[in-house]
Amino acid sequence: MFDYEEMLDQYLLEIEDLVKSKQYAKLRELFLPLEPADIAMLLEETGEEAMPLLYRLLPKELAAEVFVELESDSQEMLINGFSNTELKEVLDELYLDDAVDIIEEMPASVVIRILDKATPEMRKSMNEILQYPEDSAGSIMNMEFLSLKKDMTVADAFKRIRRIGGDMETINMLYVTDPQRKLLGVLSVRDLLLAEEDDLIEDLMDPNLVWASTMDDKEDVAQALSKYDFLAMPIVDKEKRLVGIVTVDDAMDVIEEETTEDFEKMAAMLPSDKPYLRTGVFDTWKARIPWLMILMLSATFTGMILNHYEDALGACLVLNAFIPMLSGTGGNSGTQASVAVIRALSLDEVDFSDILRVIWKELRVAFLCGICLAVANFAKMMLLDRWLLGNSDITVMVCAVVCLTILFVVIFAKCVGCSLPILAEKIGLDPAVMASPFISTIVDATSLLIYFRFASFLLGI
Amino acid sequence: MFDYEEMLDQYLLEIEDLVKSKQYAKLRELFLPLEPADIAMLLEETGEEAMPLLYRLLPKELAAEVFVELESDSQEMLINGFSNTELKEVLDELYLDDAVDIIEEMPASVVIRILDKATPEMRKSMNEILQYPEDSAGSIMNMEFLSLKKDMTVADAFKRIRRIGGDMETINMLYVTDPQRKLLGVLSVRDLLLAEEDDLIEDLMDPNLVWASTMDDKEDVAQALSKYDFLAMPIVDKEKRLVGIVTVDDAMDVIEEETTEDFEKMAAMLPSDKPYLRTGVFDTWKARIPWLMILMLSATFTGMILNHYEDALGACLVLNAFIPMLSGTGGNSGTQASVAVIRALSLDEVDFSDILRVIWKELRVAFLCGICLAVANFAKMMLLDRWLLGNSDITVMVCAVVCLTILFVVIFAKCVGCSLPILAEKIGLDPAVMASPFISTIVDATSLLIYFRFASFLLGI
Repeated sequence: MFDYEEMLDQYLLEIEDLVKSKQYAKLRELFLPLEPADIAMLLEETGEEAMPLLYRLLPKELAAEVFVELESDSQEMLINGFSNTELKEVLDELYLDDAVDIIEEMPASVVIRILDKATPEMRKSMNEILQYPEDSAGSIMNMEFLSLKKDMTVADAFKRIRRIGGDMETINMLYVTDPQRKLLGVLSVRDLLLAEEDDLIEDLMDPNLVWASTMDDKEDVAQALSKYDFLAMPIVDKEKRLVGIVTVDDAMDVIEEETTEDFEKMAAMLPSDKPYLRTGVFDTWKARIPWLMILMLSATFTGMILNHYEDALGACLVLNAFIPMLSGTGGNSGTQASVAVIRALSLDEVDFSDILRVIWKELRVAFLCGICLAVANFAKMMLLDRWLLGNSDITVMVCAVVCLTILFVVIFAKCVGCSLPILAEKIGLDPAVMASPFISTIVDATSLLIYFRFASFLLGI
Repeated sequence: MFDYEEMLDQYLLEIEDLVKSKQYAKLRELFLPLEPADIAMLLEETGEEAMPLLYRLLPKELAAEVFVELESDSQEMLINGFSNTELKEVLDELYLDDAVDIIEEMPASVVIRILDKATPEMRKSMNEILQYPEDSAGSIMNMEFLSLKKDMTVADAFKRIRRIGGDMETINMLYVTDPQRKLLGVLSVRDLLLAEEDDLIEDLMDPNLVWASTMDDKEDVAQALSKYDFLAMPIVDKEKRLVGIVTVDDAMDVIEEETTEDFEKMAAMLPSDKPYLRTGVFDTWKARIPWLMILMLSATFTGMILNHYEDALGACLVLNAFIPMLSGTGGNSGTQASVAVIRALSLDEVDFSDILRVIWKELRVAFLCGICLAVANFAKMMLLDRWLLGNSDITVMVCAVVCLTILFVVIFAKCVGCSLPILAEKIGLDPAVMASPFISTIVDATSLLIYFRFASFLLGI
């Protein structure tokens, strides 16, 4: 691939030189052919001092595109430096959904200033979008889309595109609505181009059965868009009127964000909304300490079980050496099942009605895994621990206790691991929280109980 | 949202009724307005017997679109039932990249039959794509794209689109090439529509600086496409000639696949390529047992450490009760750091040159977390264990040993957790493997060593 990293480093050096020697015309030329995302990255790297200066070199339209790609602290800094005229110029160039994204990250004083400088229609639309809940499709939709009437001809449609298409984020998909703004069908600009001038839109359009409503979860909408290979998903309000579209680039951002959140939750962190290196130490600490604290304190139960069996352990101290292995194996088995199920849930491959199929599958997998692990461990204990290392405390009975425990712990862990995420989703919790750390803590305590039960039964302690 | 689940269940009942009463015309009508992905799902649900019959009801073009969306075992079954003419009909309707995707999953006998029935040009192109490595951009690109010459006018371009656009997967992006097929620039169909008939393509196009090469990793290409909000990424060969494009829908599939693989690797599973419920018990077992076995056997070290300190433990058995809590807290701390860094690596937010910044950040976070956990645990041990539960073995010194261990284990775990993934990527391994289970196993052994070191120092055992 075009080596971005290296290329950007070179650009950065060049920019520094040009800034120093005040060759602004050359700087502008250097930026012009670059992609907005790359220009934004370069501006961020040049630092706070040079950024406003460099930003002002960009032509109006490009400047707005770059502005959207900047991190929110850079956007805030730039806005604070803008004159009212400059702010208005940027706002005029922004697409509505991007403007709303920016506003959502700004402090109140900046928001007021932006709303003040926006055109009345834009202000009205912004207010509308800002009222949708944060995770809803309404909050990420773009209200500027191209709608056609069914009795238009292809020629009419082209005329309309030429007239208002320039203000739209996309004209690849066109939406046909009735006088009440209800969605009748969709067609692509390709359908138009391949048709005859006097064909009727009605005859060309696909009657549309797939849409999402403003209050749907934005992640579901993004997944649906990916499943149907759409370039945009039409969004309707409660009265089934077409009010906006969610475009594929926004859907990709949603999927990326939600995936990151899933990873974070599954690793016992609270979700953060900034890139890793841009999150401060204190914010990172705040995201990580709650679950660490909860999980540490809940390990009290494991401690209490060990205390309870202190005498038994004292009588057969060799058992102690296998506890970390048992809880590790149990934790890993449970994690495998829970992560597989959490991912299947988030890709809509599994839902609550499948719970018995899932458990039945995991039971059989657990049985196979448990038998293999138990046999391998039996061989290892007899050959390595007893025979090679000469540890005479390790009798066949001790081996039996450990290996039986492995089998039962693996089965227990896989069943808990696969069913907890499904149950969590059923009662409206996020299944991702039921991942590794949570499962491990439950399995830890249970594996000890199973272990000591077998020990007292087989070894009589 | 349009409630797919419920809707599909209703359709399914209706389909069964219509099949029983042999009302094929009605069945066809029922399918026509649906999306290909939904029809595929319905066909899969009706089972092997009805599927070929229902499939044959679909009009040719829709049939091919549905075929692409089916699972590979259904595709294989259908192909085996196809006459040569039917197979040829489907192949003629498929886009090249979809045809290659299908071939890659088929057994050799089916592949030979497909290649035999494809047109000579298609066979040649298929062979070309099949030669690219599995993870390369070349393997997922589409060789059918619309190219223009720079001296064409807008009217010429429209003529060309009308002539050959019908065979292209997308005409939203148009690529301008020179006589040697080198990429000069891109423009969107919107640019064309908003221009004048006699404008020159050269004046309208964006000089293109962003492209990927056939051998680039397909995940990097998908990420770049998402970063730049492109609808398609141009793919060039070694001589910088434009040979294909990767479209946004394929990029989304790649990202979904790779994310699933990351989740699997991070949960100590080998990646699978089928949906959860479609993977057999034996395949699931094969994906899970290797890491379970490796991690179980490597817990031998923890066991050896515990054996080594058996006498010390015997002398102060109360220490034993805190081992699960210590290894759990260490494991969770390490997991948090490693997962955060793995995600940052895969989103290109962090690379090897950032390793010191990352470690410095994690050190400070670890210190904050460690202090909080140690203080909370000290309070809990003194108040709950000693005072409320009356366990007189828990002295201030024992508390000090446990709490100091927590602090050091958290610091150690976070440093290992954040640096191992970066080092793994540097030496060409997949960082996702350095996640939770692997880190926990290392941290387990180390936390015991730290624990016993403090115990022998402070308690003199």
